Amino acid sequence: MNDFIFHNPDKVYFGKGQMKNLPQELLNFGKKVLLVYGGGSIKKNGLYDEIVSLAKSADIKLFELSGVEPNPRHTTVNKGAAVCKTEGIDVILAAGGGSTIGCAKGIAAAALTDNGDVWPLVLGGVWVTKALPVVAILTNAATGSEMDAWAVISNMNTNEKIGLGGSALIPKAAFENPEYSYSLPPYQTACGAFDIFNHVLDNYYFAGDATFDMLLEMQEAVMRTVVKWTPVAMKEPQNYEARANLMWASSMALNTILDGGTVHGCACHMMEHELSAYYDITHGHGLAILTPRWLSYISDESTAPSIYRLGKKVFGVEEGLSAAKGAERAIKAVSEFCFETLGLKSTLTDLHIDNKHFREMAEHACQGGSISGIRCRTAQDIEKIYEMCL
Amino acid sequence: MNDFIFHNPDKVYFGKGQMKNLPQELLNFGKKVLLVYGGGSIKKNGLYDEIVSLAKSADIKLFELSGVEPNPRHTTVNKGAAVCKTEGIDVILAAGGGSTIGCAKGIAAAALTDNGDVWPLVLGGVWVTKALPVVAILTNAATGSEMDAWAVISNMNTNEKIGLGGSALIPKAAFENPEYSYSLPPYQTACGAFDIFNHVLDNYYFAGDATFDMLLEMQEAVMRTVVKWTPVAMKEPQNYEARANLMWASSMALNTILDGGTVHGCACHMMEHELSAYYDITHGHGLAILTPRWLSYISDESTAPSIYRLGKKVFGVEEGLSAAKGAERAIKAVSEFCFETLGLKSTLTDLHIDNKHFREMAEHACQGGSISGIRCRTAQDIEKIYEMCL
Repeated sequence: MNDFIFHNPDKVYFGKGQMKNLPQELLNFGKKVLLVYGGGSIKKNGLYDEIVSLAKSADIKLFELSGVEPNPRHTTVNKGAAVCKTEGIDVILAAGGGSTIGCAKGIAAAALTDNGDVWPLVLGGVWVTKALPVVAILTNAATGSEMDAWAVISNMNTNEKIGLGGSALIPKAAFENPEYSYSLPPYQTACGAFDIFNHVLDNYYFAGDATFDMLLEMQEAVMRTVVKWTPVAMKEPQNYEARANLMWASSMALNTILDGGTVHGCACHMMEHELSAYYDITHGHGLAILTPRWLSYISDESTAPSIYRLGKKVFGVEEGLSAAKGAERAIKAVSEFCFETLGLKSTLTDLHIDNKHFREMAEHACQGGSISGIRCRTAQDIEKIYEMCL
Repeated sequence: MNDFIFHNPDKVYFGKGQMKNLPQELLNFGKKVLLVYGGGSIKKNGLYDEIVSLAKSADIKLFELSGVEPNPRHTTVNKGAAVCKTEGIDVILAAGGGSTIGCAKGIAAAALTDNGDVWPLVLGGVWVTKALPVVAILTNAATGSEMDAWAVISNMNTNEKIGLGGSALIPKAAFENPEYSYSLPPYQTACGAFDIFNHVLDNYYFAGDATFDMLLEMQEAVMRTVVKWTPVAMKEPQNYEARANLMWASSMALNTILDGGTVHGCACHMMEHELSAYYDITHGHGLAILTPRWLSYISDESTAPSIYRLGKKVFGVEEGLSAAKGAERAIKAVSEFCFETLGLKSTLTDLHIDNKHFREMAEHACQGGSISGIRCRTAQDIEKIYEMCL
């Protein structure tokens, strides 16, 4: 078992009646607020009007950056940072899903640099300890950005999609109202849910012996939640219980309460970021295609017992099988969850992706070295897994 | 499902090699530190020497308050507060279990009052938002005080044992090294573990329909951990895995990550505080005697399904029983855990407690009104449960 530090000072307001607390959380930092949002869904569901009205009532001055892309671009981030510098913004309010919150975090970091450019920070791999405060209103259960220390920024000129991390990027407060995710269509619901599932899976022990039992237990609890409630949310988009379970699962998956000294591999995330960077596909769908193949690829004598445990605990795979057979059944259960229950297309070919850039993407994913994790570490490994996804 | 706020800014350093971070965490607040500890076990296991040496290396001036009692007295708290006032203490360092950390929290609150007396704060039921900072070094997995907002202070003149709570009482940092709990004898290990178990159980839904499924799943994960690892820690006191699972379970049980809008009843804790206040028995032992009786008392058509679920998920009670039969088996499993696995004496009579003060204690527990929770609410209910424990 490894030593670890747990520290997450984010203050989460969860539920239907929490927005009344928004003005005070913003005023903790000042009166000039940059509101960041995406394509305008918050205008349709009333959230935008609610924010404007709350701001007005508290004499808060709102500035706006709209049109944040899924897979937010560094150019958009820089536009926001320029507003912060020009207007002397005190706090950034992100209203949306992980892309919008990630964009806000990028702005928060870039706004405190001399040239207001986020990309050198991203490329430099700096751990950000100085940034403007971010407050998040979450509308999509998926990335965990509402409670984590990360943003993922894309540069479409260079086909790069890279994480930017830092303790200063953890939101100061997050508002999570499951009702705001009612309007998400089944496909986005499924992709978001699989993102959550994979965040937990990436932290799961595959070392054969479970050394921190309670961590595994809690990880399995969150994965079972996703498996149970996602199909409900897809069928009944306004089912509060389903949306609430998924939304809190999203936060639990990446607020580091499930880390506890585990070796955070992120293999599937590293591989998927390349797919999104090259083809701009939906992150959770890319993960769903990769994950069962990755599990097959890493399955061997040392990892099969853990994969089998996952199958038993999360998908109800029967007891009493050999580790190899059990792991096989577990992987089949993960596949069925992705491609039957969630109804996601199962191959890269289905998404019109061929092997043209596989080598380049694989090398890119390891940045010339290797990724951390079990068995799948080198560009050769990654290329083979991409091939398995065709 | 109820709305909730989650906010726990405590920074936890978990594991064997974390003490090197202690000086910096103290220096965040200043150089004058009041070290609070109990009967001297930290002198036997080397922790005291380690603290003194780390303080010296960082030019930190240590003041001391030793001899904190299990069930810490308000008089001891006030002694510490007087030192803080006289010496201008910047931060309080508690090294011990829940009693020591609770005492430190009481000192932290009292030190900022005019007269330095904690008891009026306790009696007033004030939510403390102003206190000196507390840093905790945990040596006993039990109370959750290392991550929670509570202290429990006893006044032996008036036979009162009452909680003092407040956001300012959450420690700023906690050091959790499972090795520091190696020296705990089996009896203390068992009592501490059952305290953890009961903290989670007190937050469990007994409303018949589980409205926040993921919360229940996570609560069950932590309870299973306690059930699995406590006998291991009792048999092999130096088993790191066992001690680590229990220590992190202690923190998880009360850092509010398992609250999520549940109605925090605390019935067993309210009843037990009276037993400890009148008879100074070990808190976890009192809880173990009360809990199965309390479960029997609250079991009816509406609660039996939840009690049965608990039995299935935590103790492996078989599927397919009626709710009533299932609940009965679940309660039997809790009893067996307390009185066979943990080996605790099963009645108040065994602890030389008779019914002499039951009426008075019961009325005291509800402070003239009622306690929150399921079915067990009035002094009459509580008195009946005490009778069941003879």
